[in-house]
Amino acid sequence: MKKGLFITFEGCEGSGKTTVSKYLYNRLKDEGYDVIYSREPGGVDIAEQIRAVILNVNNTAMDPRTEALLYAASRRQHLAEVVLPALNEGKIVLCDRFVDSSLVYQGYARGIGIDKVWELNQFAIDDCMPDMTLYYDVDVEIGLARVRSRGELNRLDSENVEFHKSVRRAYQLIAEKYPERIVTVDSNQCLQTVEEESYRLLKNKIDANEQK
Amino acid sequence: MKKGLFITFEGCEGSGKTTVSKYLYNRLKDEGYDVIYSREPGGVDIAEQIRAVILNVNNTAMDPRTEALLYAASRRQHLAEVVLPALNEGKIVLCDRFVDSSLVYQGYARGIGIDKVWELNQFAIDDCMPDMTLYYDVDVEIGLARVRSRGELNRLDSENVEFHKSVRRAYQLIAEKYPERIVTVDSNQCLQTVEEESYRLLKNKIDANEQK
Repeated sequence: MKKGLFITFEGCEGSGKTTVSKYLYNRLKDEGYDVIYSREPGGVDIAEQIRAVILNVNNTAMDPRTEALLYAASRRQHLAEVVLPALNEGKIVLCDRFVDSSLVYQGYARGIGIDKVWELNQFAIDDCMPDMTLYYDVDVEIGLARVRSRGELNRLDSENVEFHKSVRRAYQLIAEKYPERIVTVDSNQCLQTVEEESYRLLKNKIDANEQK
Repeated sequence: MKKGLFITFEGCEGSGKTTVSKYLYNRLKDEGYDVIYSREPGGVDIAEQIRAVILNVNNTAMDPRTEALLYAASRRQHLAEVVLPALNEGKIVLCDRFVDSSLVYQGYARGIGIDKVWELNQFAIDDCMPDMTLYYDVDVEIGLARVRSRGELNRLDSENVEFHKSVRRAYQLIAEKYPERIVTVDSNQCLQTVEEESYRLLKNKIDANEQK
């Protein structure tokens, strides 16, 4: 039985990663590929329960390391119930955000340290690293303008431009650190160009995997 | 400001660790020491919420690594809210079960591996390791007889003697692995002898800490 392919999508708010990953999912499905689209906690009941603890607005006393451990626990359960079974059935799994989001948000922005959060997540992931991660790099002003134009305001969007700049720097650092896995896509380009470039990268990866 | 002293108590069911640690707490308090007694989740609201997810009987799909991550998250929060503030105030903290329980139950009994669970817990503990751990070693038959005589039956007690034997082997392995931190107390002896020996060990540690 051929092992599937695990692809993750990362980027700041307004980077286009969700739009593009959904486009890729539909295109691959239309072409007859056995593909699933997911994002944590992905409707997994135990992962949802863990998220409810993280997002409980009364939990103001939550330590940053507790939060990182809970995200890792939610990730592990989503992986065990959704991603691993699909990969074992030879499917292509497209996942909107994965370990790099924790490296950026808990490791860098919360100040725990990228390497420490990486080590923690090794325990959660247990060798099931993505085969390829597409990182959508976008200028902070362009990204924020897109978010505003959608009329979306969540916790992250309401934080300031400096925060988004530091998130982008962290993503760029991580992309430099893991060049074999992470491919940077210039998301300042128009959507159609970004979609076509992403499709080409993904198709190459699928073809290379099938020739293994 | 003098840093406090962090002492943990470990052992199988029926090893006497809870009885002895409470005895030590009362004796130190009577002698005028600034001492607190705790056990995870220790009334910490966020840690209780995490425990509720672990112990939810409907969560049969929980992956062993998810469980280990949740125990580590609960540990971190209890540490951040109870143990660290007390230590920073110079108190003696007596804690019934800590990291070694995870090494034994998640690492060894659940088969994840002691070293992997150790690494995970390093993230949760972040250098706040116990100054001393008292491990109460007892023959499985004697321990189980004590539990039965109390009329207590919980999930662990209902498992078989072989399971308890493997837990004891794991504790003995860990005690050999960390000889600077873990002191083994022969808990087959009568309670009074075990209490006196524990008191002597603890008092020596307190005196050595005060001379620092």
